[in-house]
Amino acid sequence: MPLSLSEKALCVKPSSTLAITAKAKAMRAEGLDVVSFAAGEPNFNTPENICEAAIQAIRDGFTRYTPASGIIELREAVSAKFKMYNNLDYTAGQIVISNGGKHSLSNIFGVLLNPGDEVIIPVPYWLTYPELVRLSGGVPVYVHGKKEIGYKVTASSISDAVSSKTKAVIINTPNNPTGMVYTKEELAEIAKVAIEKNFYIVSDEMYEQLTYGGHAHVSIASLGDEIYKRTITCSGLSKSYAMTGWRIGYTGSSVEIARLMGGIQSHQTSNPCSVAQKAALEALTGDQSTVVKMKEAFAERKKYIYERVTAMPYVEALEPAGAFYVLLDFTKVLQKSHQGQKIESANQVAQILIEDFQVAVIPCEDFGFPHFIRLSYAISMKAIDKGIGRIESFLQKIEQ
Amino acid sequence: MPLSLSEKALCVKPSSTLAITAKAKAMRAEGLDVVSFAAGEPNFNTPENICEAAIQAIRDGFTRYTPASGIIELREAVSAKFKMYNNLDYTAGQIVISNGGKHSLSNIFGVLLNPGDEVIIPVPYWLTYPELVRLSGGVPVYVHGKKEIGYKVTASSISDAVSSKTKAVIINTPNNPTGMVYTKEELAEIAKVAIEKNFYIVSDEMYEQLTYGGHAHVSIASLGDEIYKRTITCSGLSKSYAMTGWRIGYTGSSVEIARLMGGIQSHQTSNPCSVAQKAALEALTGDQSTVVKMKEAFAERKKYIYERVTAMPYVEALEPAGAFYVLLDFTKVLQKSHQGQKIESANQVAQILIEDFQVAVIPCEDFGFPHFIRLSYAISMKAIDKGIGRIESFLQKIEQ
Repeated sequence: MPLSLSEKALCVKPSSTLAITAKAKAMRAEGLDVVSFAAGEPNFNTPENICEAAIQAIRDGFTRYTPASGIIELREAVSAKFKMYNNLDYTAGQIVISNGGKHSLSNIFGVLLNPGDEVIIPVPYWLTYPELVRLSGGVPVYVHGKKEIGYKVTASSISDAVSSKTKAVIINTPNNPTGMVYTKEELAEIAKVAIEKNFYIVSDEMYEQLTYGGHAHVSIASLGDEIYKRTITCSGLSKSYAMTGWRIGYTGSSVEIARLMGGIQSHQTSNPCSVAQKAALEALTGDQSTVVKMKEAFAERKKYIYERVTAMPYVEALEPAGAFYVLLDFTKVLQKSHQGQKIESANQVAQILIEDFQVAVIPCEDFGFPHFIRLSYAISMKAIDKGIGRIESFLQKIEQ
Repeated sequence: MPLSLSEKALCVKPSSTLAITAKAKAMRAEGLDVVSFAAGEPNFNTPENICEAAIQAIRDGFTRYTPASGIIELREAVSAKFKMYNNLDYTAGQIVISNGGKHSLSNIFGVLLNPGDEVIIPVPYWLTYPELVRLSGGVPVYVHGKKEIGYKVTASSISDAVSSKTKAVIINTPNNPTGMVYTKEELAEIAKVAIEKNFYIVSDEMYEQLTYGGHAHVSIASLGDEIYKRTITCSGLSKSYAMTGWRIGYTGSSVEIARLMGGIQSHQTSNPCSVAQKAALEALTGDQSTVVKMKEAFAERKKYIYERVTAMPYVEALEPAGAFYVLLDFTKVLQKSHQGQKIESANQVAQILIEDFQVAVIPCEDFGFPHFIRLSYAISMKAIDKGIGRIESFLQKIEQ
């Protein structure tokens, strides 16, 4: 008998996002002036009041085990936030605090899925969704978004994909990588299908605080009792509060699902870092003015980057409504050439951009969108300006 | 179709340890003077230098994503610690930093197990092992320890339990709940079986720094190349450095297994808390004198509690060699009575002790040892004195 390993583990795809980020970092370490549009995190520091709360927690010796699902004060703060911001009633007993949004999603699929259960994933998708579904024994079923509505999925296309094995649909709004935001009407239609055909909605609302212009964030679970019962709402502190490294995410769900997620978490990781929990408590209950300022900065960058990319040759862009990404369609660049070399894929474009132009971008093949490239504008205006200039230089050198 | 949930999740046992701890906490909140022998964590604060390093990390803005498997400096520090303390050669690329020891174990089983794979678990066991094995689709196979050697398992009893489906054996030394330490000779015999019959060893060495008297901790992977290849060594900062709340554990394994665990972790949780990683770096590389002091305090308490429990009627105790637990055999108490009520189980003893004597203990049914009770001496001498007095009062009131 050879010492075999888990088939599931062997199938996990190494993240292409991380590969590009690592390459950019290595080049910077060599002294090269790399501009990176790859980062999925704000370039802001965690606000001062949050840092001070964490320091106080350390000084107070708040460094021991906490309840596995999180301290009651933090669960109550999340409950209040759900009520005020999302119009959602989740008591503290319905809330589980986890080691970041990924961990919350991992808990959700761990509790929902039996082997062979299908989860409908709208395309393009955040690359972690299919991996987590497969790790929990589920089968990803892909439904393509409609170009006319910013690659969002419609209720009817979801309905067409439902089978007897459908256990859940993932809705991610504001969306990574498209930057689109689902309207209340679109969500209501999707909710109707979920109720009729009886499946769960996994609502990933990590970027909920970041919407621009007239776009408002709506939580699908807030649209009625029946959809509330079928939804697990998932969010976290990373993006809105510039707290990516601290690792605090959370879920709102039925009491039963929360209890089961808490049970799994109590064995798989136990409580999230006690100090980070205190930081999160201050984030949710303390002064919110830095959040507003960061959001304003993102709005300004969004306006600027969108103006710049729409002026580019060959490339089509979606105007972002939320999150901090702009999605670029590179279809017209493919099959053209660069320095005599035929361009076959967005992966290759990303390769050329990092190697010849020192600009890191995320090709969306692992997001299910092989002709597209994602730019994050969670970087300074100066970096955006410089980086866009470099992408333009590349496009200007394209040979027909 | 009803909205069903994961069969695996539904089978997860809520931790009895946590239930007792919660009960004790609730009673304290009511103003009752409860002594708790239940805690699995030191009553010491995290040492000052570690806290200061964490505070410095926050002030330096070290609050963003790190590599999912941990910062290179910390992996190098773990590598150096493995070399110096365990006589083990693991390069930084063979090390994965996780959200605590539980998370490291969860990653290990996630990478090793396919559905139906068997994992041999020595009895008594830490209650999280069978849960994690089942969550990864594995089947726990129990092998009872031998009373004469402190309920440690022998190579031959493991050998007898091996089937064609055996993927791994868990070795936990120093042991929770027995407080026993495997000798080099015992481990060498077990290693021989692992090599002959070709299975993995999951070596949980969380309590490695805490051994007393002449007992020395030995890492099974250090006993030769062949066993090194088949072992995943798992440890963490929680117990030795009084860092339970921070959640930092780690593994040493082959490069391939480390890569697969890192892949799973990159999707399931991403990096452990960045601030906690900096705290762990200081713990491993900074002044070690507080660790020595804590160990001396544990040794003193161990001596005292062991003297006290051996003087008790009815109860037999194992003299601890490591960790911070003493295991008490309550077999002779069972089938006797208390206040006219027949005592059927150690669970019932624990119930009586908390309700009538305000002393919290861990009954070991969920550790596979239903006639036993575990006392933690990670509490003050004063609390030990008071708590043992209360258990004695209970025993003196036992009716034949």
